[in-house]
Amino acid sequence: MKIAIIGAGSSYTPELFEKLAEKKEELPIKLISLMDIDEVRLEAMASFCRRYAEHLGLKVKIESTLNMDKAIYGADFVNVQIRVGGNESRKHDEKIPLEEGFIGQETTGAGGFMKALRTIPEILKIAASIEKNAPEAWLINYTNPTGIISQAIHDYTKIKCAALCAGGLRNTWNTASALGVDARDVQYDIFGLNHLNFTYNIKVRGKNISKEEFNKVLDKTGLSPEMKEMAIIMKAIPSAYLQYYYHRVKKIKVLKKEAKSRAEVVLDLEKEIFEDLKNPAFVEKPDSLKKRGGDGYAEVAALTMEAIHNNRDTWGVVNVPNGNTYSFLPYNAVVETAVMINAHGIKALATEPPPKAVWGLVSMVKNYEMLTAEAAVTGDRDTALMALTHHPLVMDYDAAKILLARLMEAHKDYLPQFK
Amino acid sequence: MKIAIIGAGSSYTPELFEKLAEKKEELPIKLISLMDIDEVRLEAMASFCRRYAEHLGLKVKIESTLNMDKAIYGADFVNVQIRVGGNESRKHDEKIPLEEGFIGQETTGAGGFMKALRTIPEILKIAASIEKNAPEAWLINYTNPTGIISQAIHDYTKIKCAALCAGGLRNTWNTASALGVDARDVQYDIFGLNHLNFTYNIKVRGKNISKEEFNKVLDKTGLSPEMKEMAIIMKAIPSAYLQYYYHRVKKIKVLKKEAKSRAEVVLDLEKEIFEDLKNPAFVEKPDSLKKRGGDGYAEVAALTMEAIHNNRDTWGVVNVPNGNTYSFLPYNAVVETAVMINAHGIKALATEPPPKAVWGLVSMVKNYEMLTAEAAVTGDRDTALMALTHHPLVMDYDAAKILLARLMEAHKDYLPQFK
Amino acid sequence: MKIAIIGAGSSYTPELFEKLAEKKEELPIKLISLMDIDEVRLEAMASFCRRYAEHLGLKVKIESTLNMDKAIYGADFVNVQIRVGGNESRKHDEKIPLEEGFIGQETTGAGGFMKALRTIPEILKIAASIEKNAPEAWLINYTNPTGIISQAIHDYTKIKCAALCAGGLRNTWNTASALGVDARDVQYDIFGLNHLNFTYNIKVRGKNISKEEFNKVLDKTGLSPEMKEMAIIMKAIPSAYLQYYYHRVKKIKVLKKEAKSRAEVVLDLEKEIFEDLKNPAFVEKPDSLKKRGGDGYAEVAALTMEAIHNNRDTWGVVNVPNGNTYSFLPYNAVVETAVMINAHGIKALATEPPPKAVWGLVSMVKNYEMLTAEAAVTGDRDTALMALTHHPLVMDYDAAKILLARLMEAHKDYLPQFK
Amino acid sequence: MKIAIIGAGSSYTPELFEKLAEKKEELPIKLISLMDIDEVRLEAMASFCRRYAEHLGLKVKIESTLNMDKAIYGADFVNVQIRVGGNESRKHDEKIPLEEGFIGQETTGAGGFMKALRTIPEILKIAASIEKNAPEAWLINYTNPTGIISQAIHDYTKIKCAALCAGGLRNTWNTASALGVDARDVQYDIFGLNHLNFTYNIKVRGKNISKEEFNKVLDKTGLSPEMKEMAIIMKAIPSAYLQYYYHRVKKIKVLKKEAKSRAEVVLDLEKEIFEDLKNPAFVEKPDSLKKRGGDGYAEVAALTMEAIHNNRDTWGVVNVPNGNTYSFLPYNAVVETAVMINAHGIKALATEPPPKAVWGLVSMVKNYEMLTAEAAVTGDRDTALMALTHHPLVMDYDAAKILLARLMEAHKDYLPQFK
Repeated sequence: MKIAIIGAGSSYTPELFEKLAEKKEELPIKLISLMDIDEVRLEAMASFCRRYAEHLGLKVKIESTLNMDKAIYGADFVNVQIRVGGNESRKHDEKIPLEEGFIGQETTGAGGFMKALRTIPEILKIAASIEKNAPEAWLINYTNPTGIISQAIHDYTKIKCAALCAGGLRNTWNTASALGVDARDVQYDIFGLNHLNFTYNIKVRGKNISKEEFNKVLDKTGLSPEMKEMAIIMKAIPSAYLQYYYHRVKKIKVLKKEAKSRAEVVLDLEKEIFEDLKNPAFVEKPDSLKKRGGDGYAEVAALTMEAIHNNRDTWGVVNVPNGNTYSFLPYNAVVETAVMINAHGIKALATEPPPKAVWGLVSMVKNYEMLTAEAAVTGDRDTALMALTHHPLVMDYDAAKILLARLMEAHKDYLPQFK
Repeated sequence: MKIAIIGAGSSYTPELFEKLAEKKEELPIKLISLMDIDEVRLEAMASFCRRYAEHLGLKVKIESTLNMDKAIYGADFVNVQIRVGGNESRKHDEKIPLEEGFIGQETTGAGGFMKALRTIPEILKIAASIEKNAPEAWLINYTNPTGIISQAIHDYTKIKCAALCAGGLRNTWNTASALGVDARDVQYDIFGLNHLNFTYNIKVRGKNISKEEFNKVLDKTGLSPEMKEMAIIMKAIPSAYLQYYYHRVKKIKVLKKEAKSRAEVVLDLEKEIFEDLKNPAFVEKPDSLKKRGGDGYAEVAALTMEAIHNNRDTWGVVNVPNGNTYSFLPYNAVVETAVMINAHGIKALATEPPPKAVWGLVSMVKNYEMLTAEAAVTGDRDTALMALTHHPLVMDYDAAKILLARLMEAHKDYLPQFK
Repeated sequence: MKIAIIGAGSSYTPELFEKLAEKKEELPIKLISLMDIDEVRLEAMASFCRRYAEHLGLKVKIESTLNMDKAIYGADFVNVQIRVGGNESRKHDEKIPLEEGFIGQETTGAGGFMKALRTIPEILKIAASIEKNAPEAWLINYTNPTGIISQAIHDYTKIKCAALCAGGLRNTWNTASALGVDARDVQYDIFGLNHLNFTYNIKVRGKNISKEEFNKVLDKTGLSPEMKEMAIIMKAIPSAYLQYYYHRVKKIKVLKKEAKSRAEVVLDLEKEIFEDLKNPAFVEKPDSLKKRGGDGYAEVAALTMEAIHNNRDTWGVVNVPNGNTYSFLPYNAVVETAVMINAHGIKALATEPPPKAVWGLVSMVKNYEMLTAEAAVTGDRDTALMALTHHPLVMDYDAAKILLARLMEAHKDYLPQFK
Repeated sequence: MKIAIIGAGSSYTPELFEKLAEKKEELPIKLISLMDIDEVRLEAMASFCRRYAEHLGLKVKIESTLNMDKAIYGADFVNVQIRVGGNESRKHDEKIPLEEGFIGQETTGAGGFMKALRTIPEILKIAASIEKNAPEAWLINYTNPTGIISQAIHDYTKIKCAALCAGGLRNTWNTASALGVDARDVQYDIFGLNHLNFTYNIKVRGKNISKEEFNKVLDKTGLSPEMKEMAIIMKAIPSAYLQYYYHRVKKIKVLKKEAKSRAEVVLDLEKEIFEDLKNPAFVEKPDSLKKRGGDGYAEVAALTMEAIHNNRDTWGVVNVPNGNTYSFLPYNAVVETAVMINAHGIKALATEPPPKAVWGLVSMVKNYEMLTAEAAVTGDRDTALMALTHHPLVMDYDAAKILLARLMEAHKDYLPQFK
C-alpha cells in the first residue's frame, strides 16, 4: 500500500502522519511518497516526517521527490494539498475584493473564485498523471475550494476522487461533545456545497435529538448568536463559513480593519513552523504547527482511506456529483452531502427535503461554481465574468468586471489558460 | 360581458378604456364596474371615464361602487390594480432600504418584499369575493409585485388568475421596431420571474435572428451599455429591472442622491392628474397622465381578455405555476414564461434550456418569493425574516432583521396578519 | 409555396388535394411535386390529381418525378406517406404474429415493430435529402408507426418534423358532434403515444364537460362497451387502438378467424382504386377511394401547414419530444400530446397529471419504441430483440426470438441495416 | 432486546432461530415472543423452538401468545411472516389464473395481486399495534408480495419498516461462490421491484468483474439458458421470478401440466413438518423442514437487525420508497434497490442508470402495484380492476374482469374492505 502526498511541503502533512500512525493496523502502508515543487520546504518536511514517523511508531518507507509522476506511480491514494502561488497569492485573493468593497476570503466569494481559476489547471495535471501512473488510485482532495475543484475533476476527468472537508463531519463531533455520546453514533442529513452546507435532522442512534439537545449542539459550533438564532428558525445548522453571507456587511468591515490578512498571518506562522521543523531536536509536532489548524482534514482523510481500503461500509460527508439526489440541482453538480463510502466508491444517500429557506442560495452558488469550473478549464473570460457577476457575495456586473480585471492582473503568472 | 376594475381610482384606468375601445368588436362589453376604497378618486375617475368612453366611441355602461362584492358579481374579468397604503406607503418601501444601504424599489428587494406583505391579504379578499360572486371569472392581475401575488393566489385559492406584466411582451415590440416586422410575428423563449426575466432564442416567423439583428433589438431596449454587453455574452436580454442586480452598487448611490423618490414623484404627478381628470373639459387623456406610464399593461390585459373571451389560441408571456416546465424549480413555483392563452386557460409552453448563467439567480429569488408569499398569508415573522435574509439584494441576516423591523413598524396599519 | 408528397402513389393523396383546395386562401401553393418509386402508380395518381385539382378549382402546378431530391428541392412542406414493401409486406406483419399467437397489426405489437424497422432507413434518407435540398422545410409525417418514426427523426436528424395522426384530434370531432358545439371550441389534455393515447379533462370553451356529456362523447367514439366502461372508470378516453391491449385475447381470436387480413383487403381495394383513377372520366374521388379512409390525416396535415405557414397560433395534438412535459418519461422520448403550432415550431403544452392507471403502460411501450428506433438505425439485432421482448403485447423472450427470426426472414430485402 | 414474530406458526421460524443463535453476540436478545392465530401450529412451533434454542446454545426467553398486542408490546423488532387464508387460499391464487390462461403464482401476476388484497388489511392491523405498543420498533417484513405490502405500509402508516427479500443479496452469494471471494466484498447496483429486479454493475472490492467472471456468476444463478442469454445482452441479471415474464407462454403450459400446485405441495409438506416438530425427540431441524426453503430470508433479516441494533453501517438491498433515486418513478413508489442500513434507518444509495431495456417494464408493474396497494386499503373495486388490467402478465380488460370476479368470490371471507 502506497500513499502519495502532492504538495507535501504543506504544514498539513504532519497531522496526516499522526492519523496514519493511529490507524496503522487498518492502513498497512509500505511507502509514503512526498512530492512538492518547493525543494526547500519538501526536504524540511521530509526529514521532520521521518523523525516524527519513528517517534509515532509508524514503520513505513518515506521518500521525497520533485517528480510528480514518480510520486503517483503505483499509489493507492494520492492526497492533494497544493496551494498554487502560495500564501503570497492568497494575499491578493483576500485584499483585492476587500478593497473593492466585497468579502475577501480564500474559499468563498471573489477570493475563492480566483483560487479556483489558478488551482484547477494544476489539479488536472495531477489527474492526468493518475490516469497514466495509477489509474485505480483515489485522489483524496482537500485543496480549497474543494467543491469547485472536484466539480472540474468530475466533469473533465475519469479518475476516482474523494473531495473532503472536515466541515462535513464537524457536527458529529459537536453533537458527541455536547451530548456525551460517541461521534460514530451521530448522523444527519446535510445539504449544500462545500463551505455552504446545512446540517439538519440530527439523530443519535436513529433517535431525533430534542430542541434542548439541538441548542446544546449549537453551543459547540462556535457560531455567532445571530447564526444560532437562524439555526433555530431553520432547524438546521449552517456551516461557519456562512458567516460571510449572513454577516456579510459586518464581516467586510471587520476584515478591512484587520491589521494583517489571514494570508499574512499564515506566512509569518509558516516561517516559524519551518524553522522548527528543520530543528532535528523536534521529533514531535512543534507548538507553532498546532496554531495552523488542519487536524480535521487528516481525520476525514484517514477515515475515507480506511473505508475504501478495507471495504468497510462507512457513513460520511463528501463532495460528490448530485445525480438525482437533489431534484433542483443539475445531474452533474457536485454537492456536499451524506454518503456511504467503501471500496466500491462513494455514493450519495437519499435525504429528507432540505431546509426550505436555502435551496435558492445553494442553487445560485452552485451555478457560479459550475461556471467557474468551466471557465478554469476552458479559459473563457466571459464565462468567468458571468460566474463572478452571479455570485451572491458579488451580485454586481460593474464590480465583477473590475474584480476580474484586478485579480487576473495580480495572478497572471498562474493563469496560462486565459491567453 | 362585464368587467370589474378593482382599484379603479388608479391612474392606469384610462389606458385600459383606450384598449377596450380599440377592441370593442372582440370584447363586446356591456358593463364596466369601477370599484375603489377612495371615493374621491373613484368618482373623479368614473366621471372622466364616462366622458372618455363616449369620446372613444365605446358604448358601455359604467358604474362606480365602493362595494367590492357588487363590482365583482357576475363579472367575466376582474382587473386588479390596487396599491395598499398608496404611494405614501411606497415612500417607505423605497426610502428605508436605501437608508440601510440596500436597493429600495417598489417591486424588487426589500421594498417589493414589503409591498407583497401588505398587498397579499387584500388580494386574498378579492379572490374570496370572486369565488363567491363570479366563480368562473378570471382575475387579471397587474398589481405589483405580480410574481409574488400570483404565487399566493395559486397556492392559496382556487380561482383562475392571469398575472400579467408588460415586460413579458416588451421584446416583441422591441424586435418589431428594430427589424421592421410585425410584433405578432416575433416569438421567443423567456425564462425567469416577473421583473427578473431573460429573453432568448428570438425568432421572426420561426427564423432565428442574426447577431446583427440581435444587436439592433438590444438598441431598442433602453438597457445600459453594460447590460447590453451582458446580453451579448449570455445571448439573452435581461429585463430592465435587472439593473437593480447588475448595477446594484451604482444604483444604490444614484437612488440615494435623487432629490425625490419615485413615490414622491408619482404623488406629485397624481395630484396633477386628478386635477385634470376632474376638469369636465377633458374628454381625452390629459398630458399629465401620459407621464405616468402604464399603457403596456393595458395592451397585455386586453390581449389576454380577447384570447380568453374568443377562445383564440394566442401566444403570450404570463406568470403561471411552473409544473414541470423548469426542472430545477418547484412544481408550484410561479414563473414568468411563454404560454398559450385561450378560453381553456393559460398553459406554459415547453422551452429550450435557459441561459446557463442565471438559473441560480432565478432559483434564489424564487425561493425568496415563495417564502414571502407564505409569510404574507400565515403572518409568520420568522418566515418573513428568512425570506428577506436570502434575497440576493440583501443577503445579510443582520441587515434583514433591521429592515424587517423598520418596515413592519412603518407599515403596521397594513399588516394585520402579523400580530 | 411548394409542397412535396413523398409516396404520392398512396391512395391518401387525393384527400390531401381536397383539403388543400378547401384552404387555398390560407395555403397559396404554387407547386405540388408528387414523388414515388412506383412509376405506374405515380403516373396514374398524377393524372388523376391534375383532373381533380381542376375540378376543385385548385390552381397549382403539379409535377411528378421519380427523383426524391428534385421533389424536395425548395419545398416548404414535405408530406411523407410511404409504405416500404407495400401491402405485400404488411401481410407478413399481420400474419406472422397471429400464427405465433400474438396480435398482428400494422402499427402496434410485433407488426408495427417490423414496419418501423423497414421504414426508418428510408425516412432517414428523406430527412437527409431535406437537410440538403430544403433545410427550412417541415417534414409532415403520417407514415406509420408515426411515433417510432418520429422518435428516430428527432434522435438522429436535425430537421423540423411534425408527426401527425388524426387520432389526436378525433375527440374534438367526437365532442363537437355529440354536444353540438364547434370542434375548435373543444380542447383537452391528451397523454400517451401515437395509437396509445388517453384523452382526459375535456373542456368546451374552458368549461369542463359533465358526466352526462362525457357519456355522449363516448357514444361517438365507436369504442366497445367494455372500453367505454374503462373510460368512465379512468375519466379518460382510450384511443381505439387500445382495443389491441384491452381486448387482447379476444382480438387475437377474431383476427385469426378473418378470411382476409387487412393488407389483403387493402390490396384488393387498391387494385380497384387504381383502375378507377386511370379512368379519365373520373374528375372526382371514385367511390372505391372513399372505402380506404384517410381523410382525418389530410385534415390534420392541412391544419398544421396552415398554422405554420401563416404563423397562426393553433392548438393541436402532435408527436413531439417530451422535454420535461411528463416527468416519468425521458427528455428525448417522443410523446403524443397537446401542443401549440405556429411558424416558430410545435411546442408541448403543460398538462394536468395523466390518468393514474396508465403511466406504466405508456412507459413500457415507450421503452420498446425507443429501443426499436435505435435498432432500426443501428441494425443491432440484440437491441431489436430486447425491444420486442418487452412489448406488453409480446412480453415473452422465447416468442420474441421466434417472431424476430421469422419477420426478419420475411422482410430481409428491406432490412439492409441488419447485415 | 425483544423480538416478536407474527405468524410464528410459519415453517420459516426455525431458520430465524438458527440465524439468531449464530449472531447471539451481536443481537443480545432477552425475549422472543411467538404469536399466531393458529394455536395448534403455534404451540407445536413454540415447543420445538424451545428445544432448538437450547440445542443451539441460544439463551433467551421464549413466550407464545395468541394476543398480537402482547407480542408486540415493547419489541425492538417485529418480524412478520403471515399468510392470510393459509396455503388453502394460495391454491386459488395459483389455480384460478391458470384456468383463465394466465400465470398463477403467489407473488406475481393475478395470484400475487389477490394475495396483496387479502394481506394488506392484516398488515395494517399489525402496523397499528406497533404504533400503539412499540412505536420505535422496526417491522421486518418478509410476507409476500413484500413490494406491494411495503407500498401500503409506507403510504398509509408512520412506522419504520424493513421490507426484505433474500433475492436482493442472492447475487452477492452467487458471485462469491462463482469467483471464490467473500460475499461481503461483492456489491452492485440493483434496479427494480421485489421479484422483478435486475442486478448490474457487479464489483468485487470496487473492481468491475470481467465478462468471463460475469458468465461464471450467471452459472450459479440457476437461470434458464435463455435468461442467461438475456442477461448477457442486458449486462444485468434478472431475478429468477422474471421467468414468469420472459418464459410467460411456456410457464403457463408447464404450470397447467403440473399434477399439484405449489400450494398443494406445501400443504403436504407442512403436514409432515408439523408431525416432525411435535416429536420431542427432534432438537434439530427435521429433514422435512429443509425441503421448505426460507434460509435466505432469515439471513437477510438477521443482517438487517444486526445493522440497526448495533448502528453498523451496512450495505444491503431493501424495498424502500424511491424518493428521487429513479427519476422515472414516483417519489413514494417503493423500489427494491441498494441501501445503507444502520440505526438511523435505511437509505437508498445513488445508482448508475439502470439497464436500458427494462425501465418501462418496471414502471408498468410499479403502476400496477401502487394501484393494488390503494385498492387493498380503500376497497375500491374499480381501482383493483384497473390494477389487474394493466399488469403486463394480464394486459387484458375482459380477462381482468373475470379474474377479479372469480378471485374475489373465492377469497370473499378475507376481503372485508370490499363490501
